[in-house]
Amino acid sequence: MKIFTLSKSDVEQLIDIPDIIEVIEEAFSEYNSGNVTLAPIANLSVEDNGEVHIKAGHIHGYANYCVKIAAGFYKNASLGLPSLFGIMLLYDAETGRLVSQFFDQGLLTTVRTAAAGAIAAKHLAQDTISTAGLIGVGTQGKMQMKFLQYVKPFKKLCLWDMNPEFLEQSKNELQIEMPDVEIKILSTASEVTAESDIVVTATPANTPVLFETDLHPGLHITAIGSDDPKKQEIDSSVFRGVDKIIVDRTDQSVMLGELDHAINDGVVSRDDVYGELGELVLGKNVGRESDDEVTLCDLTGMAVQDIAISVWAQHKAHTIKVGRIIEV
Amino acid sequence: MKIFTLSKSDVEQLIDIPDIIEVIEEAFSEYNSGNVTLAPIANLSVEDNGEVHIKAGHIHGYANYCVKIAAGFYKNASLGLPSLFGIMLLYDAETGRLVSQFFDQGLLTTVRTAAAGAIAAKHLAQDTISTAGLIGVGTQGKMQMKFLQYVKPFKKLCLWDMNPEFLEQSKNELQIEMPDVEIKILSTASEVTAESDIVVTATPANTPVLFETDLHPGLHITAIGSDDPKKQEIDSSVFRGVDKIIVDRTDQSVMLGELDHAINDGVVSRDDVYGELGELVLGKNVGRESDDEVTLCDLTGMAVQDIAISVWAQHKAHTIKVGRIIEV
Repeated sequence: MKIFTLSKSDVEQLIDIPDIIEVIEEAFSEYNSGNVTLAPIANLSVEDNGEVHIKAGHIHGYANYCVKIAAGFYKNASLGLPSLFGIMLLYDAETGRLVSQFFDQGLLTTVRTAAAGAIAAKHLAQDTISTAGLIGVGTQGKMQMKFLQYVKPFKKLCLWDMNPEFLEQSKNELQIEMPDVEIKILSTASEVTAESDIVVTATPANTPVLFETDLHPGLHITAIGSDDPKKQEIDSSVFRGVDKIIVDRTDQSVMLGELDHAINDGVVSRDDVYGELGELVLGKNVGRESDDEVTLCDLTGMAVQDIAISVWAQHKAHTIKVGRIIEV
Repeated sequence: MKIFTLSKSDVEQLIDIPDIIEVIEEAFSEYNSGNVTLAPIANLSVEDNGEVHIKAGHIHGYANYCVKIAAGFYKNASLGLPSLFGIMLLYDAETGRLVSQFFDQGLLTTVRTAAAGAIAAKHLAQDTISTAGLIGVGTQGKMQMKFLQYVKPFKKLCLWDMNPEFLEQSKNELQIEMPDVEIKILSTASEVTAESDIVVTATPANTPVLFETDLHPGLHITAIGSDDPKKQEIDSSVFRGVDKIIVDRTDQSVMLGELDHAINDGVVSRDDVYGELGELVLGKNVGRESDDEVTLCDLTGMAVQDIAISVWAQHKAHTIKVGRIIEV
């Protein structure tokens, strides 16, 4: 049995921002066209050490289906280990045979999530923006800014994080990636939001970092962090103050996204969701309609993104000849 | 990143019936002692080609948690390919890191399921039996008989299958494994049941093969096949005729086991389940109490079995030095 295998460094060689945005737009289009079968997400808690999320799905007509196993073990940072592990498995949709394994340690997830953020910004942020804000400057947050810069070039970037020790290093890393952008560290999340046309929250917060009082006309917020009922970045009050609530998948957001908390707190109901991101991509629904609107996109992450990015990665790896065959 | 890897032929070298029965008894004990966290089973349909079942779980205190991905693609037989693929992944429960991969093509699942059947027979069949019956002579059915022979030695074995062409070959294979047993092919499932003290059904049937009229005093039935709401081997009427209904996991049997159909048909309710197999193993509940009782064990397969067998396989492979390390 031969299995095509990519390591994390192989996957690094594949990354191409415009390609990935296009692939993820296609994924959302397929999802909102009803061409996708997704397994329910299986979550496993491993004592107090970590959480495992398993996503599986198939885009109809694609040659492969995909299973992703992502593990988040938050004590790892203190052990000097990465806190997220992820592998992607691609199977032949005709025979069920495992064909590819990507030991990407979450990199494909990071970029497919950053692409979703960029797609949200494309449809929901103002036509031109001057300042972006990033709340949570980890791997995901930094990647969000790289993808955002591609679709909505910004001149200034404001940063804040719950863990101040990461801020300086993340600022330096981002400055290398975007030398022409003025990057500032601010002392609160509220200050970041006040200065920004678009704010991305990418924290593992269990208590909110963004409140209704932080909102201002024209603001777009993309919330990335919550993919679990215990997590919350956006205070429920924010949902009262926004004009449009967009989600990647309503069924998921009401279960484990920011929306879950706002619904539990009685601020909004499921019916207050304006639409799903794929509907904007397909043109079935319009995004921002005026410069004054306040918009929020709650992203929980979908298996359809994993399928699309991994099928694309397999194809690109074959094309540019990275990876190797393992015989088992 | 180093991953310990076993091929199917590596796993074949590990198989030891009494060891595996002991490991699976331990698994059921842990489950019914509440020491296990299981993810909900994630099922994915891949167009009309196949079904993927993903099971994940952790036995508290074990060094590893386990994810199993099993794919059943039923057109494969006509393509000359195996219809079941399965891989087992073992992760470090402290750090979430992938440590082992077993490309066992379902062999570990086959033996852990056969062990469950043997454990059911130990507690529910008569003390001594003379004749065993097997309905469905595929890989699983044949393995069931090898394990059953270990716990309840039988002198005669009766076979039936929906696909008569497999019967002769399976008979020959079983005869080699158990040269002292008289093996007969019968022309109906009813005849098999009439002659047998214990019957194991291991078919992928969607319509029942065993009916209330087939029951007789002292009979024990173990139903293996149903692990999906569409499958049914045991007619609902059978549930009316049995004295004790045992399941591996009540929550699962009412959803996707034989019990699911009997409940839907209004013949029994969830409250009619006498107990779970692990309760018999733990001695919290007694199995057969008289030679006349008619008993039924409905097995749907549990992730706790997968965890236990794969942790055992990893340990045994290290001990007898099979397998290899793959660097990714």
